[in-house]
Amino acid sequence: MKILVINCGSSSLKYQLIDMTDESVLAKGLVERIGIEGSILTQKANGRKYVIEEPMNDHRKAIELVLGALVDEKEGVIKDMSEISAVGHRVAHGGEKYATSVLIDDVVMKELEECAKLAPLHNPPNMIGINACKELMPKTPMVSVFDTAFHQTMPEKAYLYSLPYELYENHAIRRYGFHGTSHRFVSAAAAEMLGKNIEDLRIITCHLGNGASLAAIKGGKCVDTSMGFTPLAGLTMGTRCGDIDPAIVTFLIKELNLSESEVNDIMNKKSGVLGVSGVSSDFRDIEDAAAKGNKRAQLALEIFKYKVIQYIGSYTAVMGGVDCIVFTAGLGENGIDIREEIVNELGFIGARIDKERNNVRGEERVISADDSKVKVVVIPTNEELMIARETREIVEK
Amino acid sequence: MKILVINCGSSSLKYQLIDMTDESVLAKGLVERIGIEGSILTQKANGRKYVIEEPMNDHRKAIELVLGALVDEKEGVIKDMSEISAVGHRVAHGGEKYATSVLIDDVVMKELEECAKLAPLHNPPNMIGINACKELMPKTPMVSVFDTAFHQTMPEKAYLYSLPYELYENHAIRRYGFHGTSHRFVSAAAAEMLGKNIEDLRIITCHLGNGASLAAIKGGKCVDTSMGFTPLAGLTMGTRCGDIDPAIVTFLIKELNLSESEVNDIMNKKSGVLGVSGVSSDFRDIEDAAAKGNKRAQLALEIFKYKVIQYIGSYTAVMGGVDCIVFTAGLGENGIDIREEIVNELGFIGARIDKERNNVRGEERVISADDSKVKVVVIPTNEELMIARETREIVEK
Repeated sequence: MKILVINCGSSSLKYQLIDMTDESVLAKGLVERIGIEGSILTQKANGRKYVIEEPMNDHRKAIELVLGALVDEKEGVIKDMSEISAVGHRVAHGGEKYATSVLIDDVVMKELEECAKLAPLHNPPNMIGINACKELMPKTPMVSVFDTAFHQTMPEKAYLYSLPYELYENHAIRRYGFHGTSHRFVSAAAAEMLGKNIEDLRIITCHLGNGASLAAIKGGKCVDTSMGFTPLAGLTMGTRCGDIDPAIVTFLIKELNLSESEVNDIMNKKSGVLGVSGVSSDFRDIEDAAAKGNKRAQLALEIFKYKVIQYIGSYTAVMGGVDCIVFTAGLGENGIDIREEIVNELGFIGARIDKERNNVRGEERVISADDSKVKVVVIPTNEELMIARETREIVEK
Repeated sequence: MKILVINCGSSSLKYQLIDMTDESVLAKGLVERIGIEGSILTQKANGRKYVIEEPMNDHRKAIELVLGALVDEKEGVIKDMSEISAVGHRVAHGGEKYATSVLIDDVVMKELEECAKLAPLHNPPNMIGINACKELMPKTPMVSVFDTAFHQTMPEKAYLYSLPYELYENHAIRRYGFHGTSHRFVSAAAAEMLGKNIEDLRIITCHLGNGASLAAIKGGKCVDTSMGFTPLAGLTMGTRCGDIDPAIVTFLIKELNLSESEVNDIMNKKSGVLGVSGVSSDFRDIEDAAAKGNKRAQLALEIFKYKVIQYIGSYTAVMGGVDCIVFTAGLGENGIDIREEIVNELGFIGARIDKERNNVRGEERVISADDSKVKVVVIPTNEELMIARETREIVEK
């Protein structure tokens, strides 16, 4: 069984074709600048790179070219589109409606439109991708895999804000959390690596990339997560501010005469480690600058680590302890120093790093010492594989 | 030495006259409805209640009557105003300028005006009170004791938000924290009660009243606190929302067409346990409703406790452990069930409540079991006494 995984952004599209017999990636690709001059598709398959530069006015055209590249006689990996058993679509927001992945039909499409109010930047391009695929492959089952679904097991006390209850009832304002596919994937992989039943574990997953979030996972179920109503909340990120006093928003509007959208822009695009350091949103640049003595770059790293440590403490309390801490995503998989510095602050829960084991990038490995009471592991995330697995499960039902 | 402690609100004024030889309260009183019809002064002294109902157009008139009540032949406690050695004023916001209390002179008054930008609701009435006292007692030294001062020892990583650094440099946007006088008082009292040197202790103080905040205090110095740029941040409070995704503020403005001040009003006055429960901002009412089966009242209590537990976990991590947890203020001193339910969730740090000892209201007491690794104590706060002590220290310098 071969499954195509699609992740549609507003002007880009990522895809992978995965052979589920051995979960190998047959082809993966990226389409950029959809609807903009200079559209380009880059596919990697058979150890080769295949580039198509051709105008793509919309996502339909892009997906047409993707399918063409997959069946291309010379550069392709399948003979016919009918070899694709199903398509798994990453969808940002499933609201409260979707706690699991779902086979897409007309009812689902209508409900996705409802959810778009909650994710106006992300759900619409996801839906455009789904519609384009449906047009081009009308007989192939499509599955929607939500970034929010894994977090739907959170209890009320974790997802409800202390705002007037009517804002939840009438406007669905609550914590949703994101990166759910990643948190689910790495927590399951960690349990497997440790040879434990996930139902017996309390895991804190640290998805540390340009967007970053933590999740508290008890018995395989998410009980809390750091992103909130939107992906702005929680940790300090590349350009996002994470948690701040909400009165700062109204202060900026009133005292600095900024508009709501200007403040949104500041919080989402000009804050985080970029805002603090003034250097870059990329942690590698910041680490370089910090190493050269840039005080604000050092401060940005300090703040980032501090928030991760705070959340680990908070989630340890919430679960009454922690058995395993997982690092994943760009910085989590590759940030050797940052991992060490974070774990060094966690002696109070008996976590202890093994410096040698921790000297690893992008590889599944236990990095805690043998006598560490908490297992600390690195697990490379693989959201595409998780989407493919979910998709298979749904279509095989 | 007798010290008068003054706490001026916009239309009210609280005072105590304290004899510093034994720290006894000679008189305490409350003036309400200053500048409003129905002004009233109520003083308790000599075991009697003394009420003055008389128009008070401004704070000067109110303080004139306070001084009159204190020297009143029949109801007073001193013969002459000259017996008041100094006046200690509670001032909400000292900005970054004041990490300690300070003798008030013209320079200080000017700087308080600067700080008023940061606390537009609180600093101006504080200053009106100071000016009125200066007029009526021109020779008596006045001391300003700031609600923010104790938190000024926080490290940068704890007080700096992940916003553009310029917002800190140019607009002083950072975490300040409040309730500092209370956190300082109860942490010092806890160390004394335990017979320990505060320099050797890691203490988490839980000031749980209608306004609520936690502080992490390491070696007697505040290293973090839950209130932020304003007293809105942190825990769920009576009517304040505490921490929420800051994008909710812009969502409410954009999608619900609310103004900045309407959102501020919602977050400060219609949220917290009042907003969640729909019942009341008073925890006693909510506990009653919850006991009668009101689901939203139960939920409000759950959320409140959950946030306290999260912060305790976070601050334990920040300090690398915790030796003592202090409960204070209305709910902290009197909320027997809430204290028990919170401590019951803290088994992971070895905290264990002693149910019998915990059966106490408003009394200084250890409430943890003998084998509890973390000492849990109740300490009634006494901000007035702390202000008086600070004032004495400053004038005796």
